[in-house]
Amino acid sequence: MKQEKRARDWNITIGTLPAGPRNKITDVKGITVGHVTIKDKDIHTGVTAILPHQGNLFKEKVVGASHVLNGFGKTMGTVQINELGTIETPILLTNTLSVGNCATGLIKYTLRDNPEIGRTTGTVNPIVAECNDMYLNDIRHISINENHVYEAIRDAKVDYAEGAIGAGTGMKCFGLKGGIGSSSRVISIQGKTFTIGALALTNFGRLHDLMINGKKIGESISNSMENSNDMDKERGSVIIIVATDLPVTERQLQRIIKRCGIGLSHTGSKMGHGSGDIVIGFTTASTIAHDSTKKILSHDFIHEEELDLAFHAVAEATEEGIINSLLASETTTGRAGKKLESLTEYINDFF
Amino acid sequence: MKQEKRARDWNITIGTLPAGPRNKITDVKGITVGHVTIKDKDIHTGVTAILPHQGNLFKEKVVGASHVLNGFGKTMGTVQINELGTIETPILLTNTLSVGNCATGLIKYTLRDNPEIGRTTGTVNPIVAECNDMYLNDIRHISINENHVYEAIRDAKVDYAEGAIGAGTGMKCFGLKGGIGSSSRVISIQGKTFTIGALALTNFGRLHDLMINGKKIGESISNSMENSNDMDKERGSVIIIVATDLPVTERQLQRIIKRCGIGLSHTGSKMGHGSGDIVIGFTTASTIAHDSTKKILSHDFIHEEELDLAFHAVAEATEEGIINSLLASETTTGRAGKKLESLTEYINDFF
Amino acid sequence: MKQEKRARDWNITIGTLPAGPRNKITDVKGITVGHVTIKDKDIHTGVTAILPHQGNLFKEKVVGASHVLNGFGKTMGTVQINELGTIETPILLTNTLSVGNCATGLIKYTLRDNPEIGRTTGTVNPIVAECNDMYLNDIRHISINENHVYEAIRDAKVDYAEGAIGAGTGMKCFGLKGGIGSSSRVISIQGKTFTIGALALTNFGRLHDLMINGKKIGESISNSMENSNDMDKERGSVIIIVATDLPVTERQLQRIIKRCGIGLSHTGSKMGHGSGDIVIGFTTASTIAHDSTKKILSHDFIHEEELDLAFHAVAEATEEGIINSLLASETTTGRAGKKLESLTEYINDFF
Amino acid sequence: MKQEKRARDWNITIGTLPAGPRNKITDVKGITVGHVTIKDKDIHTGVTAILPHQGNLFKEKVVGASHVLNGFGKTMGTVQINELGTIETPILLTNTLSVGNCATGLIKYTLRDNPEIGRTTGTVNPIVAECNDMYLNDIRHISINENHVYEAIRDAKVDYAEGAIGAGTGMKCFGLKGGIGSSSRVISIQGKTFTIGALALTNFGRLHDLMINGKKIGESISNSMENSNDMDKERGSVIIIVATDLPVTERQLQRIIKRCGIGLSHTGSKMGHGSGDIVIGFTTASTIAHDSTKKILSHDFIHEEELDLAFHAVAEATEEGIINSLLASETTTGRAGKKLESLTEYINDFF
Repeated sequence: MKQEKRARDWNITIGTLPAGPRNKITDVKGITVGHVTIKDKDIHTGVTAILPHQGNLFKEKVVGASHVLNGFGKTMGTVQINELGTIETPILLTNTLSVGNCATGLIKYTLRDNPEIGRTTGTVNPIVAECNDMYLNDIRHISINENHVYEAIRDAKVDYAEGAIGAGTGMKCFGLKGGIGSSSRVISIQGKTFTIGALALTNFGRLHDLMINGKKIGESISNSMENSNDMDKERGSVIIIVATDLPVTERQLQRIIKRCGIGLSHTGSKMGHGSGDIVIGFTTASTIAHDSTKKILSHDFIHEEELDLAFHAVAEATEEGIINSLLASETTTGRAGKKLESLTEYINDFF
Repeated sequence: MKQEKRARDWNITIGTLPAGPRNKITDVKGITVGHVTIKDKDIHTGVTAILPHQGNLFKEKVVGASHVLNGFGKTMGTVQINELGTIETPILLTNTLSVGNCATGLIKYTLRDNPEIGRTTGTVNPIVAECNDMYLNDIRHISINENHVYEAIRDAKVDYAEGAIGAGTGMKCFGLKGGIGSSSRVISIQGKTFTIGALALTNFGRLHDLMINGKKIGESISNSMENSNDMDKERGSVIIIVATDLPVTERQLQRIIKRCGIGLSHTGSKMGHGSGDIVIGFTTASTIAHDSTKKILSHDFIHEEELDLAFHAVAEATEEGIINSLLASETTTGRAGKKLESLTEYINDFF
Repeated sequence: MKQEKRARDWNITIGTLPAGPRNKITDVKGITVGHVTIKDKDIHTGVTAILPHQGNLFKEKVVGASHVLNGFGKTMGTVQINELGTIETPILLTNTLSVGNCATGLIKYTLRDNPEIGRTTGTVNPIVAECNDMYLNDIRHISINENHVYEAIRDAKVDYAEGAIGAGTGMKCFGLKGGIGSSSRVISIQGKTFTIGALALTNFGRLHDLMINGKKIGESISNSMENSNDMDKERGSVIIIVATDLPVTERQLQRIIKRCGIGLSHTGSKMGHGSGDIVIGFTTASTIAHDSTKKILSHDFIHEEELDLAFHAVAEATEEGIINSLLASETTTGRAGKKLESLTEYINDFF
Repeated sequence: MKQEKRARDWNITIGTLPAGPRNKITDVKGITVGHVTIKDKDIHTGVTAILPHQGNLFKEKVVGASHVLNGFGKTMGTVQINELGTIETPILLTNTLSVGNCATGLIKYTLRDNPEIGRTTGTVNPIVAECNDMYLNDIRHISINENHVYEAIRDAKVDYAEGAIGAGTGMKCFGLKGGIGSSSRVISIQGKTFTIGALALTNFGRLHDLMINGKKIGESISNSMENSNDMDKERGSVIIIVATDLPVTERQLQRIIKRCGIGLSHTGSKMGHGSGDIVIGFTTASTIAHDSTKKILSHDFIHEEELDLAFHAVAEATEEGIINSLLASETTTGRAGKKLESLTEYINDFF
C-alpha cells in the first residue's frame, strides 16, 4: 500500500481528543474498508465498501442512523434506516449514476449468502451513497457494474488506502483533488474507552472557502494557481460514514452524526444548494439478529449527559478526515485532459 | 385493452366527491401510465411507469413531495424530492430487488434525451418505488432489466389497464390478488375545477382486516376460503402515487398526500411493521425549468383554508384506487404453484 | 363518580384484542388521570392531567415520543421530547389559549419538588397540549390559572371520569358533544402480557363524516337533528395520549403512536386543515434517572418483528377511546346558549 | 441609546458579502426589535420582541420556517410554523421558565387587536423562544409577566440596542457575557438587491472552544482569566432569528435557515447536548391574508439555483451576529455575586 502523507504529517492536528492507533475509521474494531478503482482514459471512478463487521450483516444487523445535511443527492437506503434504525448490508460509495448498478450488485451479494431472502423472509435494504465525479470522469459512460461491488467488498481490510482511490478516484473538493479520507477519536466514559471514526468521500466546496484548522488558505491558493476553476458554484457532495463502538440508541446515534456538520463547516463548506451532504452512521456495540428466538432484547446505551464527548469526537474526526482526503489525493488528470491539483502542492506554504 | 370491472360496477362508491371521467389518475391532464408485464413459469413481475407530463421532465420539472407512512421500503429518490420539492423523471414502480436495474434504466433514458447531463449540468434523480412480490414471483431471479424501463415508458397512455399487470403482476393484497388500481376526484375552488388522482400498487394487509366501504368482509371471506393463507404477518407494502393539477406549494402538496393514510386505513391496513407504505405526489399546475433565464419565478397556490376539499378528495381516491386494484386483479397462479384468488370471487356475497 | 355508559354498553366492540380490566389508559400500571372542570355561565373549560407514574417525574423520566398527524396546533414541549426521547412532567390538556398559564403552573409545580432546578441543574420541559373549545367556552376569557394545574394533578386517580369533564368540558366532536375518552388493549409477547392505553381529547370532525365501527351514521344523525351545525369546516383538534408498559425504544414508541392515525381515520376524521391532531406517548417499562451515577445504562426492548401487535392495539384503543369520549359526554349548553347534543341521543338508532 | 462597539470596530469582518447600512436584522425593511430589561438584585432577565412587520400580523401573516439544530429547548409555536409555513405574531425571546407567561401575554396582545379570535375565527399561535439565564438570574423567581410582553413590543424600533439587554440581560456565552447580537448581508439577484439579517440570543459554548474569524482565542482567554468557569459542560442555548425580503417558499426558507448552523459552528459551538439551538426565519417578500376573498394566490420565489448566495449570507450574518452579541455585552455581576466578563476585556489581545 502506498503511504499517503496525512494531516498530522504536516503537524495539522484537529481538536484536542486523542486519535486511535491508525487514525482511521477502522480503529473501531471489526470494521474494514475496500476499494475498486477504475481508470481508463476518460474513466476515473470506482467503488468503496465499508463493512460494519465481518459476519453476515443481514443476519446480524447493526444499529444505524442517517442524517441529511443537504439533500441534493441520490443516496439509497435511508428510508428504511430511518424507520428501523438498522443497517443490514455493507455501505457502498460510488458515483451518482452508478447507484443502480451498485444496488443490484449489493442485492446479489446478499442473496448469495442468504438463501432465505425472497423465500421464507423478506428482502434486503442495500445502502449506496454517491457523489458526482463528472469533472474527471465520463460519468455518462456508466462504468461500474455488479462485479465491482464484489471486488470492493473482497478488498476490504483494516489498513485501507486513502485519497484518489475507490469511489474517490474522480472526486473534486475545493477545486482541488478530493477523494477518500478518514480519522478517529478515542473517548473515555467511566473508565472504558470507546472509538468514533469518520470516513469522508469529498467532492464539494469552492476553493475560496477552504479553511484548514482555522486558517483561511483557499483564496491564497486560488491566487497562486495558474488556472483556478473556482468560478464554479458549490457542486458535488460529501458523504460521511461514522462508525463507533459506543453503546447508543439509534436516536443518540443520530444526534452524534448530526455533528458531522460542524466538522464539515470548519473546512469551509457552505453546504451549497447543489451538494448532497449525507451522513450514515452505525454502532457495533451490539447487533440485532434478523431471526431471534428471544422476543425481548436488551441493549446498553450511555446516559444522555455523556454525549458531549461523542459530539466533540465526531466533529473533530470529520474535519480531519476531510483534510486527509485532500492531502492523500495526488494531482490527477482525467476526462478530456482536465486536471485537478493535489493540496500537497500548496500545503507547505501554510503549515 | 381488457375491460376490468371496477368498484363502481358493484355499486361501491367511496365518499361523496365526484370522480373524473375515467376515474383514473390520468384524469389529471397530461399524465400517462405504462406497463410491462413479465410472466414466465415462476416469474410474475413487471414495471409500471407514471409520466407526470409528456415533455422532457428533466428540463421541465414538476413540483413534488413524498411521505413515508411506514418506511420498511427501498424507494429511491425521496431524499432529493424532500430537499428540492421537484420530480424530474417518470416514476417507476417495480419489485423490491429490481430497484437498482430500474434506476439504471431510468438514468440511461434520461441521459439519452439530455446530452448536457454529466457535461455542463449535474445529474438526474431517478424515482423508483417498490413492493415485494415474492409470493407469486421468484424475486431472487432479478428479471427486470434496463430495457423493461424503456418498454414501460413507451407503453404509457391515458387509458391504461389495471389489476395484475405491470408492477402489479405478482402482488398480493389482503391475502388476495393485488395489483394496480386507481381513482380520481374532481373538486371546485372559486368556480374552477381541479382533479386529484391516486394510483396504488397494492401488496399489503391481512385478509381478516379487509374492509370495503365500511363493511368488514375480510373475516367472512377468510372463513369461506379453502386454504386461507392469512396467518401471515402484515408484509408487503403499498405505493401510492398522487397527481393533481391543483396549484399548491410543495408543503401543501405534502399535507395533501399525508391523507392517503386515511384512505389506506379505511381498507383495513394497520400499516404493519413489515410494510413499506410510501406516497409520492406531484402537481402539474406549473413546471420549473431546469435552466431558467428568469431568476425570480412566480407560482399560484391555493389559500390554505381551501385544502380541506383536497384532503377529502385524496382520501377517497386512495381508498377507491386500492379497491379497484383488488377488483381488477384476476385469480393468478404463480411461483411454485402458489395461487391468489381475485376478490371478484367473493364480492357478490357482499355488494 | 358518575358512571358513564361507554361503547361496550352498546355492544360496540372495536377490533379483536382484549381490553384491560378498566378499559382505560390507567390499565397501564402507575398511571393516573385528574381533572379540573370550570363551568360558569359562558365559561366551559378545564384541565386534564395525565401522570405517567407516581414518583418524581423530573428525577425519574419516562421514555417518550410525539407525533404530529396535523400540526395546526399549539402543543408545547414536543421539540425536547423529539430530541431527548423523554418526558419529565405530567402531561396537561387544556384549551388553546391557556397553554401559557398551564405551562407556568406546571413549571412551578416542578420547581417546588426539585429545588436544584435553576441552581445546580438545568430547567424543565413542561408538556401541555390543547384543543380549541370556543364553541361552548368563552375562550377569550382566559379562565385557567396556575392553581388549576395543581388541582388537576392532585385529582389524579386510576378511576377517573370521562366525557364533558376536565379539558373536555367545552369540546365539540363531529358536531356533537366531545370530551375525554379512553380505552386499552392487552397483548402478549412470549408469555408476558403488556397493556397499551389511549386517552383522547376530542374536538374534531364534521358530523356527516362520523363512522362507528364501520357504520357511517353521521349523515343520518345530521338529517334527524333540528339544527345541525354541520356546515362548519373541520376545525378543532384531537390530542391522543398513549401509554404502555411494553419495553420499547423511543423510535419503536414513535412507530406505535403513528398508528393512532388509523384509529382516528376509522371514526371519520379527515385530519382537516384546521385541526391540530397530535399524539404523545410514553412507556413505563423503565425510567431514566436525571442524575445517574451509572453512565452506561441498559434497557429492554422488543424485537422489531413483535411490533405489529402493538400497532393493532393502539389503533383499536384510539378508535374506541374516541367513541367513548362521545358516548360519555352529555348534552351541554354553553357560551351564548349554544348547545351540543350527546351522541347518546342518537346511538340507539344504530346499535 | 448606548453605542456598543461591534465586531467591525475591531476590524473583524466575517466573510465577503457586504453588510446592510445598520448591519442589523432591521436592515430588512419593516422589521423592528424591542427590549424590556429587568435588573433587580438577583434578577437579571428580560424579553426581546422581533416584529416581522408593522401591521396586524395575525391578519397579514409572513411566510415562516423553523429549524432545530439541537432540541434541548422549550421553544413554543414551531409545530404550527412547520405545518402551515406562516408566522402570525411577533417573535418573543425570554428565559426558559418564562415561556408560559410570555405566551399568555402574546395571546392577550393578539386578542386585543383581533376581536374575531375565539368568536368567528380560530386561535392564534404565539411564538416564544428561550435560553436559560440561570447563571446570572434567579430563574426560579419567574420575574416576567404579561405586561413585559406589551412593554417589549411597544419598545420595538429599527435602531435597537444589543448586548446584555432584553432577553440577553442574563445570558452567558463561551464563559463570557452573552446577549443579543445581530448582523446583515445584502445580496443581488438579477439586478435586484435583497437583505438577509440574523439576530442571535447567545447563551452557549465553552470558553476553550471560542473561535473568532478562524482564530482560536478561547483557550488563551481562559488561561488569562483569574477564575475561569470553563469546566462546565456546554449548557444554555442559542436562538437565531433570520429575516429576509428575498422571495422564497417556506421550503427554500428552511434550506436557508439551516445554514445558521455553519455560522454557529465557526464560533466554536459543538451544539452541546444540553443546548437548545433553534432557528426561526421569515420572509417579508409577501404576506398571506388570514381572510382572503381570493382563493388562489400567487407568490414570487427565486430559482433554486440562486440559493447559494443566500446560504453564504445567512452563515456570515449568523457568525457576525454572535460575535456582536459578545462584544456588545458588558461585564455583569448577577445572582449571588456571580460575574461574567465581557469579551471586550480580552479582544484587544487578538484583534
